[in-house]
Amino acid sequence: MMRKSDPANPTLVEVFRGTLVESRHAGAIAVADADGGLLFAFGDVERPVFPRSAVKAMQAMPLVESGAADAFGLGDDELAVACASHSGELAHVEAVRSLLAKAGLDESYLACGAHWPISEEASRELIRVGRHPQAIHNNCSGKHAGMLAACIHLDFDPRGYARPEHPLQSLIARLISETCGIALDQSRMGIDGCSVPTWAAPLRALARGFARLGTGKGLTGERARAAKRLVAACFASPVMVAGEGRFDTLVMSKLAPSVFVKGGAEGVHCAALPGLGLGVAVKVDDGAKRGAERALAETIAALLPQGRSALADQLAGEIVNWRGTRVGRIAASRELQRALGSLAALDRGDCGVVTGA
Amino acid sequence: MMRKSDPANPTLVEVFRGTLVESRHAGAIAVADADGGLLFAFGDVERPVFPRSAVKAMQAMPLVESGAADAFGLGDDELAVACASHSGELAHVEAVRSLLAKAGLDESYLACGAHWPISEEASRELIRVGRHPQAIHNNCSGKHAGMLAACIHLDFDPRGYARPEHPLQSLIARLISETCGIALDQSRMGIDGCSVPTWAAPLRALARGFARLGTGKGLTGERARAAKRLVAACFASPVMVAGEGRFDTLVMSKLAPSVFVKGGAEGVHCAALPGLGLGVAVKVDDGAKRGAERALAETIAALLPQGRSALADQLAGEIVNWRGTRVGRIAASRELQRALGSLAALDRGDCGVVTGA
Repeated sequence: MMRKSDPANPTLVEVFRGTLVESRHAGAIAVADADGGLLFAFGDVERPVFPRSAVKAMQAMPLVESGAADAFGLGDDELAVACASHSGELAHVEAVRSLLAKAGLDESYLACGAHWPISEEASRELIRVGRHPQAIHNNCSGKHAGMLAACIHLDFDPRGYARPEHPLQSLIARLISETCGIALDQSRMGIDGCSVPTWAAPLRALARGFARLGTGKGLTGERARAAKRLVAACFASPVMVAGEGRFDTLVMSKLAPSVFVKGGAEGVHCAALPGLGLGVAVKVDDGAKRGAERALAETIAALLPQGRSALADQLAGEIVNWRGTRVGRIAASRELQRALGSLAALDRGDCGVVTGA
Repeated sequence: MMRKSDPANPTLVEVFRGTLVESRHAGAIAVADADGGLLFAFGDVERPVFPRSAVKAMQAMPLVESGAADAFGLGDDELAVACASHSGELAHVEAVRSLLAKAGLDESYLACGAHWPISEEASRELIRVGRHPQAIHNNCSGKHAGMLAACIHLDFDPRGYARPEHPLQSLIARLISETCGIALDQSRMGIDGCSVPTWAAPLRALARGFARLGTGKGLTGERARAAKRLVAACFASPVMVAGEGRFDTLVMSKLAPSVFVKGGAEGVHCAALPGLGLGVAVKVDDGAKRGAERALAETIAALLPQGRSALADQLAGEIVNWRGTRVGRIAASRELQRALGSLAALDRGDCGVVTGA
């Protein structure tokens, strides 16, 4: 069977060295409201993409909605780390251990596999004391601990909790489907780096899901409260959601409660802007984090009056070499700048879609 | 002034998760002979790209052509590390120190800046003994040591040897220009990660330059001997050119003296196939190493009868997650496979260009 190639997406971000564009990142951006109204579409926002870790807050919703979070007395740090791609810093490891302990479990239950902490300092500390990384250092260990705690409270067998056929994963799939307002296609399920299912969805649906996550609009009362509690926990503890110096932590440290952001592997990055009632979803076709972060920062800056000054560091995009010499910069493409300019100028009452490129 | 965007290049490589294409890498590939005859062009091979570290063997040519290598009694390891993007393993550091010492210098002269060794094991060893990385651990320290040794022999001031206006860099620019058969445009000079100039050139010209580097054809007698000596040193010591487990080392360990390969930052990868009289140049538009390595391996496999079996590991492209589960694969796009199929089927006597996509 001949598979047709997807048409090329427009360039979101360009990487300059000197005056020449050395590399470029193509992709797509969707901005939508909780009803699925599309405010902005740049590139193909209907093509299904794996959201990966960007939807961890949705994967954590059963933990709260089921009553597990209340029953176990979970605090902001434990809820935020359940939504996190954390750096494996000491504080992250402690929050995950605490979450597990409150559910009566320990780290031997984690099915995420081990990798070196994202935090270089945390990795060096492990090396200095002669230890190897464990599952708890995996950036997804908080999500897994949250899934385990939900299983305990829901009386699901914690064994095999990561498998697609486990009742918890079925529950999560249903919840993502309802939050994003789409049917999930079994043939478009992949297995994530940490071994749980990841369900492909169009950026348009992910943007709507984030609008609902941020506002509760379009969700049942119980689910809306769960979403708000998880987002509030991330706003209270941005360092738990990623780590020192990382994009999601920096953006929420500066812009909470106006912006909730969460990145995923392979160039996916999503945001909720509760005050505007909007969600944003970005996918860089080649999977580059630098492209996705830059495109999302530009989109937030276009949507939010205080965004451009708050994200000045993220938008500067300076590239320095090993000796600290400025050799280039990362910038939004002219096409994207132009399209976002129209978005920024849009009268909020006017729901006409800005379609870029 | 309005800059027009470059037209989109075709997809070279697709990254699957389950049955879905999760990410994709667009780019271009040129295969040329020493006369500049273009055997294969996939994507835009006339667009200037920064070759970065891919042309380190050309940057090392003054070291041999000037007589410095003979005068200092340099061996294969020292010449290979001068062409290398090394991993900072102990053997690399020793070869660079030896090169410097033979020229009467030490590592305090290196202007490349410091970074942690590419080799995780070498990095961990530094941490275990409580040390920080130095300039000698920079993957480019061998190139810099070679440049310094050339300066000493040519009676150039070793101070400022990395600056564009230094006579050694002028000499290298002229040599790259003559080897690739193009004029270098001052407005298309960038500063590399290690602080030396990098000159943008079309893939077509880089492919020709590599055909000449591998065969000596089209070069003066002295330069042809220098090129052959450097390539022979890399063939004798493939681990010096990159390091344990890395693409260039693995490919040359298996395919020398049929294939010389050298990668650069931001998705550039070049090869010389001396027996066929050909050079290959690849650029992945987004800068991803995984895309460039895969595209180059496919091109080599199409050109060289023994290539496909020798590069079986590089062509398998399996993606496993943190628990070792197979979750996806990296593969050449159908368009590229089709175009390379025509290239493989080409009668070598027929010099018609295969133009892909």
